[in-house]
Amino acid sequence: MTTRSLKILIDGASGRLARTQHLPALMQMRQEGGLRCPDGTLCMPEPILLGRNPDKTRAQAQALGLNWSTDRQAALADPDVSIYFDASATAGRFERATQAMHAGKHVYLEKPLTDTLEQALELHRLATRLGVRNGVVQDKLQLPGLHKMRKLLDGGFLGRVLSVKLDFGWWIFDGVYSPAQRSSWNYQRAGGGGLILDMYPHWCYMIERMIAPIESVTCLPRTVVPQRRDEAGQPYDVDVEDLAMAMMVLQGGIPVQIFSSWATRLRRDDMLTLHIDGSLGSAVCGLHTCRFQSLAATPKPSWNIAQERSENFHDQWQVVPDVDTYVNSYRRGWELFLAHVATGSEFPAPFLAGARGLQLIDACHRSHQTRAWVDMPPLNG
Amino acid sequence: MTTRSLKILIDGASGRLARTQHLPALMQMRQEGGLRCPDGTLCMPEPILLGRNPDKTRAQAQALGLNWSTDRQAALADPDVSIYFDASATAGRFERATQAMHAGKHVYLEKPLTDTLEQALELHRLATRLGVRNGVVQDKLQLPGLHKMRKLLDGGFLGRVLSVKLDFGWWIFDGVYSPAQRSSWNYQRAGGGGLILDMYPHWCYMIERMIAPIESVTCLPRTVVPQRRDEAGQPYDVDVEDLAMAMMVLQGGIPVQIFSSWATRLRRDDMLTLHIDGSLGSAVCGLHTCRFQSLAATPKPSWNIAQERSENFHDQWQVVPDVDTYVNSYRRGWELFLAHVATGSEFPAPFLAGARGLQLIDACHRSHQTRAWVDMPPLNG
Amino acid sequence: MTTRSLKILIDGASGRLARTQHLPALMQMRQEGGLRCPDGTLCMPEPILLGRNPDKTRAQAQALGLNWSTDRQAALADPDVSIYFDASATAGRFERATQAMHAGKHVYLEKPLTDTLEQALELHRLATRLGVRNGVVQDKLQLPGLHKMRKLLDGGFLGRVLSVKLDFGWWIFDGVYSPAQRSSWNYQRAGGGGLILDMYPHWCYMIERMIAPIESVTCLPRTVVPQRRDEAGQPYDVDVEDLAMAMMVLQGGIPVQIFSSWATRLRRDDMLTLHIDGSLGSAVCGLHTCRFQSLAATPKPSWNIAQERSENFHDQWQVVPDVDTYVNSYRRGWELFLAHVATGSEFPAPFLAGARGLQLIDACHRSHQTRAWVDMPPLNG
Amino acid sequence: MTTRSLKILIDGASGRLARTQHLPALMQMRQEGGLRCPDGTLCMPEPILLGRNPDKTRAQAQALGLNWSTDRQAALADPDVSIYFDASATAGRFERATQAMHAGKHVYLEKPLTDTLEQALELHRLATRLGVRNGVVQDKLQLPGLHKMRKLLDGGFLGRVLSVKLDFGWWIFDGVYSPAQRSSWNYQRAGGGGLILDMYPHWCYMIERMIAPIESVTCLPRTVVPQRRDEAGQPYDVDVEDLAMAMMVLQGGIPVQIFSSWATRLRRDDMLTLHIDGSLGSAVCGLHTCRFQSLAATPKPSWNIAQERSENFHDQWQVVPDVDTYVNSYRRGWELFLAHVATGSEFPAPFLAGARGLQLIDACHRSHQTRAWVDMPPLNG
Repeated sequence: MTTRSLKILIDGASGRLARTQHLPALMQMRQEGGLRCPDGTLCMPEPILLGRNPDKTRAQAQALGLNWSTDRQAALADPDVSIYFDASATAGRFERATQAMHAGKHVYLEKPLTDTLEQALELHRLATRLGVRNGVVQDKLQLPGLHKMRKLLDGGFLGRVLSVKLDFGWWIFDGVYSPAQRSSWNYQRAGGGGLILDMYPHWCYMIERMIAPIESVTCLPRTVVPQRRDEAGQPYDVDVEDLAMAMMVLQGGIPVQIFSSWATRLRRDDMLTLHIDGSLGSAVCGLHTCRFQSLAATPKPSWNIAQERSENFHDQWQVVPDVDTYVNSYRRGWELFLAHVATGSEFPAPFLAGARGLQLIDACHRSHQTRAWVDMPPLNG
Repeated sequence: MTTRSLKILIDGASGRLARTQHLPALMQMRQEGGLRCPDGTLCMPEPILLGRNPDKTRAQAQALGLNWSTDRQAALADPDVSIYFDASATAGRFERATQAMHAGKHVYLEKPLTDTLEQALELHRLATRLGVRNGVVQDKLQLPGLHKMRKLLDGGFLGRVLSVKLDFGWWIFDGVYSPAQRSSWNYQRAGGGGLILDMYPHWCYMIERMIAPIESVTCLPRTVVPQRRDEAGQPYDVDVEDLAMAMMVLQGGIPVQIFSSWATRLRRDDMLTLHIDGSLGSAVCGLHTCRFQSLAATPKPSWNIAQERSENFHDQWQVVPDVDTYVNSYRRGWELFLAHVATGSEFPAPFLAGARGLQLIDACHRSHQTRAWVDMPPLNG
Repeated sequence: MTTRSLKILIDGASGRLARTQHLPALMQMRQEGGLRCPDGTLCMPEPILLGRNPDKTRAQAQALGLNWSTDRQAALADPDVSIYFDASATAGRFERATQAMHAGKHVYLEKPLTDTLEQALELHRLATRLGVRNGVVQDKLQLPGLHKMRKLLDGGFLGRVLSVKLDFGWWIFDGVYSPAQRSSWNYQRAGGGGLILDMYPHWCYMIERMIAPIESVTCLPRTVVPQRRDEAGQPYDVDVEDLAMAMMVLQGGIPVQIFSSWATRLRRDDMLTLHIDGSLGSAVCGLHTCRFQSLAATPKPSWNIAQERSENFHDQWQVVPDVDTYVNSYRRGWELFLAHVATGSEFPAPFLAGARGLQLIDACHRSHQTRAWVDMPPLNG
Repeated sequence: MTTRSLKILIDGASGRLARTQHLPALMQMRQEGGLRCPDGTLCMPEPILLGRNPDKTRAQAQALGLNWSTDRQAALADPDVSIYFDASATAGRFERATQAMHAGKHVYLEKPLTDTLEQALELHRLATRLGVRNGVVQDKLQLPGLHKMRKLLDGGFLGRVLSVKLDFGWWIFDGVYSPAQRSSWNYQRAGGGGLILDMYPHWCYMIERMIAPIESVTCLPRTVVPQRRDEAGQPYDVDVEDLAMAMMVLQGGIPVQIFSSWATRLRRDDMLTLHIDGSLGSAVCGLHTCRFQSLAATPKPSWNIAQERSENFHDQWQVVPDVDTYVNSYRRGWELFLAHVATGSEFPAPFLAGARGLQLIDACHRSHQTRAWVDMPPLNG
């Protein structure tokens, strides 16, 4: 069997996500002698670093033993390059991806795909017309806790899904009593901040890929801590939401409730929890763990106002054991996309899936402006 | 000091709430030699049981050493009777209360006050015009857990309220796998069933008396278990909601999220929990316990996808100790209402407060029909 | 932006504190490329080691890549030297500091500033007259436990301070049953020993900078283990106190109780604990941890002589989490003093603050001699 | 062997202490067939209740099957009565005890013996002159925790006593946030309130009987919560101390530190703890438990500012096991006093011992007024 080499142009190679997640995932595959695809094909990824600063890019490339370039156009002209990957700033991503597709490259993009839903659909249509393979990074589904939840769902252990609750958030200090854990740009519109833009694309694919398509949504964004102090201790006004509640209806009528806040003190299992009630059982997962209560193990508690409760409801759930090995979620994305390019196997997050995230953000904001539910019809491209 | 006797007509004396809660509360006061009001007045409640079945009513009255009647009109004509209390069926309550007020009695009613907001306001206006004292049972605020939460709020320990989450519910079996814990009428419109009608009046006074008035609401009722079996094991269709999510905005812009379901498996501290996040601290209470996390004790957890969490978020909360003595919540209602009648001290839940519960029910249903937020303007009577 | 070089003469460079705390702190700043002051100025500390033994001093300096000298007078004559730091013996410190100030240097001193209050005030007056910046090491306030306590106090979580208890000490073996952990000079007047001289300057700035100025004191020194064995196993008589209890009154009437002993077996959280009771809460800190009990979490225990206690009082306190990053306390002192010299930012422990420590020592001894309370009026220099 | 009957006049029989502690102790002896004294004599106590209200006293006496009287003079004239016991109000106790002694009775008194030291000494002198046996209730020494401590001391396990710390107190709510646990008279001079008057007599006999006589004292009383609310919710000013720190020197130079506060949140083993350091070991006791650390088990902890402590100092103490059976402390007092009267065995708390408590109270107040140490010379009567 031959090894198939896949040259990948890594745009924004010096950025945090590329440096700490994507490149290590690809380098690990190289050290392992390549990636074995499901059909047996062996792929060897060959990253080419693309940067703006020649010295910096060269240094990074040499440290990894890779090729590099500062000329995107020239690099895209190289017929040996199969894949264009963009982990650079969101601004300009639409133009760069368009250019890469016109150069005949398969394209893999960090999220959010673009700034607007319209551009996202434009990318999808172009990819379809040109016949290039395309994908967007959707890393959260690979978290061990979510993976276990998905196995419970797919295995039928929850039965029919009755309702869904997603809880996200913890206390981000405001910089007065203690320094903030998030950068100040997260709290300013001009910097691309706001909780909805940051987190709702994740909620979109988590819900749609695990449970069912979203049919409609109503969202309540709030700025509950309106004044904060920045990295230099200077006060500033927050002009985006730091909390966003929402209700959704999924296909089949399933109700969903979402609580996302950067100003909550958490009394839950984890910083992100997903609680799914089903006819045959319920499950609650965090980042790593997942707990399950089967119909057969469901208690009948009594509402006793006269004396303190003796049972502990937390003890009535069973931890789902670790029976699978989990790969880093960014590496898993590359495994799927490289096999998609090399062997035509399915890739679960094409551009059209990424566009759904932008559609949800748009629907959330519109529901707040109109004080009404907003539908999320299927995207046809 | 003289003892003031207060004759109370107990309508629906044989019903569950009257038998197990209201009458024991009044009998206990009698055994203690009467109720000492805050201003020093000693009141002796003298219940008169009103029923339909003479044999049954006489037997119940004799067992307690009380007087009884089956003739409401005659009983109301007795000028020595001060108070009319109704714990009978909701249907007809409006007419009975109207009749009692015209007979010059002070009136205390179980909830819901009436079937509709319009009738509730009518009762309020009539009571005002006739100058009779009036009240509705609002028992949940006296639960030890809620009492502790209220002390934290009133004592300033939470600072400014940022957001509120109310979670209610547990698994009510559908009668197939195991007998249901709730009567089948709860699941049928004709029987006065439905989760919103049953529980939202409680949410209304809990939120408004503890935090702030409700300004607007949007509600998502669902019937997630559409087929059940009744007490006789016969299948029937559920035609009311058994789950109702909602979002609210309170005065000052405070966002509230409500999850209420009779088809959830609970992974929370209690069957009802209220989580309030504030600028200086957060608290989560159940029926009996309340846990608190001060700003000074707020952790900075890290989002670590690479390995399992080591800290337990539940350990980071402190149990609010039992420093007050709690009286049964129904007894507490009587203490307040008897003092209100005897000494003119304030009663926190007059008819107008009860009408707010019906206004919320109405707003919830309308928001669902119109798929939009519905305002809750103050009631002026 | 330019880097400002700061030459620092380190007197007593071979002593324990200089070697293990001060020089590592300065070398770390050098490795980091200098110290960034709050106003943005970048300072590069350049220590020059001053010792008596040329071979030893040269070896130490070469190992660190620093300059060195054995001639104090010549070194002070170098106009490029900005700062004189003294970590040598207390004896002679007054003369050395005086000489350095006359040479125009800014002066930073280990504690105790001098042997007597009068000399300390003399140093303060000279520094003022000559206009040189001056400071004394006050490291204990930077301990994580005390830092957390200070945040609770400054954040208002304790309310009005009602009373203060400081407990210090553990068992120092007497050299008979097991070798002593402290040098024998600590137990002899001629060697500058005694618990009050060693520890009360720390109590002074901890109390005055965290809570309020000391107004009066009464102290009870005792020699409870009068015979010990020295490093060579030879018995000797202890002629200083190894235990010193005290009571203080702070500004506003706050009572303070101090227990300091080198002959106690500790049943406390740490070797040094500070317990502050306040109207809104209490806190107890050690070196690293701090525990908090809010008024809202304060229990009502019962005095039950009939049976053993079931609650554990230690469980009723909440650990203050680590939300700040802590720097070594000696490094923090240098950060503040270098910025003070380079940019004029405030330094919290000038000579006058150090003089308070000597005033307290003096007051303790006088209160014991006179068997009476002694006042501590503000020092005006 | 014959049974010796002892008639005891119980003055103030309807008071709380007589009803709930002293009479049950005596009735228990009666039910057991009498008290067996150390020398084998069997005593049968025969209480005669003395009260002011004939109906109430008769009812109480009949319920217990005892005789009663409302005429003190007549009762004292009965030559069969051996013992006069007074648990009535402190006011008038001096006169009542004097009258009883002149009638030839042995006299046992609740504490405080009298209002002033002078009267207490007068009682002692009169008892000596008339040759009547006399005693005062000193119950705290019989608490299991103190009993264990005493056995450690008497058994030599602590060696020479080096220092002593007594910590007493917990949080008494001020009636605003939660109702107070102590009556309002405790906080008012006119009602006989104040912490020193209430508790220091206990500290006096605990220290003197367990360790050594007090030679001198200096005390710092404070009113740290100056405004409280009474049983009716009315605000009032506190005009006595609610906190009193003190230092003492015992015979042999032993230093003692006392912290007593009704406004502290306790992080100790118990509401009252006594910590004694000795040359061979240390011990800390509460009401029921006592913990011990022998010299052989004494650790050498290190002062490590760089990282958090790993050892738990609380784990390094050993619980003293329950090897004795403990009798109720009030019963134990009667056992000793009855044997003293019947057989001449020693009684450890004669009037002169009770007078020491009043001497200490006096010395505490004087030390505060004079801001100096006050001596406590032995009382000679």
